Order: sequence, then structure tokens, then C-alpha cells
Amino acid sequence: MKHAVGTRERIIEVAKQRFHSRSYADVGIKEICDAAEIQKGSFYHFFPSKRDLALTVIEAFAADWASGFIAEAFDPALPPMERFDYLVDAAYFWQKASQSKDADGRMPGCLFGNLALEVSTKDEVLRARLSAFFRLARDRFREALEEAVERGDVAPLDTTSTAEAMLAYLEGMILLAKTQNDPELIHRLGPALRSLRIERQQ
Amino acid sequence: MKHAVGTRERIIEVAKQRFHSRSYADVGIKEICDAAEIQKGSFYHFFPSKRDLALTVIEAFAADWASGFIAEAFDPALPPMERFDYLVDAAYFWQKASQSKDADGRMPGCLFGNLALEVSTKDEVLRARLSAFFRLARDRFREALEEAVERGDVAPLDTTSTAEAMLAYLEGMILLAKTQNDPELIHRLGPALRSLRIERQQ
Repeated sequence: MKHAVGTRERIIEVAKQRFHSRSYADVGIKEICDAAEIQKGSFYHFFPSKRDLALTVIEAFAADWASGFIAEAFDPALPPMERFDYLVDAAYFWQKASQSKDADGRMPGCLFGNLALEVSTKDEVLRARLSAFFRLARDRFREALEEAVERGDVAPLDTTSTAEAMLAYLEGMILLAKTQNDPELIHRLGPALRSLRIERQQ
Repeated sequence: MKHAVGTRERIIEVAKQRFHSRSYADVGIKEICDAAEIQKGSFYHFFPSKRDLALTVIEAFAADWASGFIAEAFDPALPPMERFDYLVDAAYFWQKASQSKDADGRMPGCLFGNLALEVSTKDEVLRARLSAFFRLARDRFREALEEAVERGDVAPLDTTSTAEAMLAYLEGMILLAKTQNDPELIHRLGPALRSLRIERQQ
């Protein structure tokens, strides 16, 4: 039991990095075991299936996202609408840094968006988990919008739908940037995010 | 040679439908041959590799897109900004119809967006082809924006970047709608697409 301590964490780390830079289907359990230097029995001790591992990876990445990007960008000391500019900048710099760290110079995109398009029609459990993450992200955006409306920084609007629109725009920018393998697209288009508005239904 | 006529077309049709509703990795050559009722030799006669088939599928889908959605929505008889509303409606109805036709009731999303996130870090040839498609779509959006500016319907803006922002938003809405398996999201958020603006750099 050379690696008894931290085996689970090592599996998660290996899977997180590989699912993100490649795809869910592309990375098999054998490859994960080899990279984490463990036997298959040990893998199944922690994760009954690859899907269970994926759920844990999503959990871990969502926690990173909340404690990293969101905690930093959504600093209550910043005026609420400026938090969106900060978030776009953070996404840009993160994609740019990931691209330069990648051996082949590829921009990985958003793990949640990547997985969502890959698995949503094929795995209802993973789809529901990813959908829950996006709802959570939307709610963080909505809170900032509510604060902005309360302060009178923006005119009243449908905060839930506007938050969802902003999230859609963020994911769409990252999708196009990944397809062009060019994070600069996020930098160029990002400032328009905060101008999105969905009006309240009368 | 029971199916000599139309074999290539049948392979493309089978692959198009399956890549779209599932994923590129998920659909193997054997499955495609079985569904098209052909031998593997026949497949390789038309397509040296699965990637060649994918390139042809992208080509075929891009042609459908141009002659369907774009030809209809981007009708020169419509005021240019209304074409974007029409395009969003067309995307909404198409996703809704596809969802109800699907045996499991799943919304398939955008084939280009799906493939782009799945393969962009793994296959440079496919990535470049998908990027070229998005550039083409952006150019169609840009032409409508240029017309709108010329007519004085919108104040001058960076038409290329704004077109790209609109495309990002469209792809992002479809991504979130697929993750929620709910085309209504496109209907709810769609109207904000035409309000996106990227200003000209001074």
C-alpha cells in the first residue's frame, strides 16, 4: 500500500486534468490507474464506476471554482457590476495560462461546458449534476445583479434570466475561443457581458 | 452491391444523426456500417478514416445550415436586425422539434458546438474545420449588422466583434439549454442577442 494516503485525491487530480484537457470518453480507467500508479482494484475501492469518478471531479472543480474565481471576482468590496468584468478577466487569464502550460499549446475551455455538451444526451445523472452547477453559478451572478439594482447601478430587470444570459455568453465565448484556440477572443468580447439585459415580464 | 447507389450518402446520414445526438467518440465505424447496412470495406472505400467522415459530416451540416436556417432567417426582405430574432426563433423551434423526435426526449444541441468542445484539443484538422465554419457564420451575422448600420437602424459599432459576440451568445444559450434539456431557455434568453454591442476601438 505504497500510496495508501492520498490515493483517492491522486485519482481525482489525474482525472480532472485529463477530462479537462481531452474529454470524458477519451480517458479510460486503465489510463487513470496507470497515471495515478495504482491497481484497478484500488480504483474501484474508491469509485464504483467512471461516472462516480466524474461526479467527484465535477464536485472538486465546482469547489475550486467557488473558492477561486468566484471568491476573488465576486469580492463584496467591488461594485457589483465590476465583479463581472473581473470574472471575465479571470476566465481570460486562466485560459491563457492553461494554454501555455499545455504540452501542445491547446486552450482547454471550461470543464463544465465541455462535459455538458459531451455527456448531456447520454448520461442523465451527469447531465443533472452539471445543470445543478450551472444553476449555482447563475445564482451567484443573480445575487450581484440584485445588489446592483438595489444600489441603483442598473435599472430594474429580470435578475434570474439576465444572470442566465450572462452565463450563456461566458460559456459561448469560451466555446468559440477554444475552437479558435485563442483566449484573446474572451478578452475582446468579454466587456459586452455586463451589458446583457433581460427585461421583467409585465 | 445491393446499396451501391447512395451508399456514401447513407453513411453520411447515419453519422450525422448519431454524432449529433450522441458524440463523435461514442459512435464507432462498426456501428455506422451496421446502421448503413454496409461492409467495412465499403466504408473505407468512401472514407479513409473516421476523421474524413467527420469532415464530410461537418461540410454537409454546414450546407444544411446555410440553405436552411440562414437562407430563411437572413431573408434580405426582412429588416436586418429582425433577422437575428428570426434566427433565434429558428434555433428554438429546431431544438424543440429535435427533442420531441428523439427516442429519449433529449435536446441534441448544436452539432458544431458539440464537436468543437469534444475534439478541439485532440484533432487539429477537425478544430480548424469547425473554426472555419464559425468564421463563416460570423461573417453572415456581420453582413446583416453592416446593413443595419448603413440603414441607420443601429449606431456604428465593431461589426466583426459584435457578430462574433452574437454567435458566442447563441452557442452559449444552446449549451445551457442542452444541459437543462430545455429548449425554452433559448426562447427566454434569445431576445437579448440583438442588443449585444462591441464598440469600435478608437
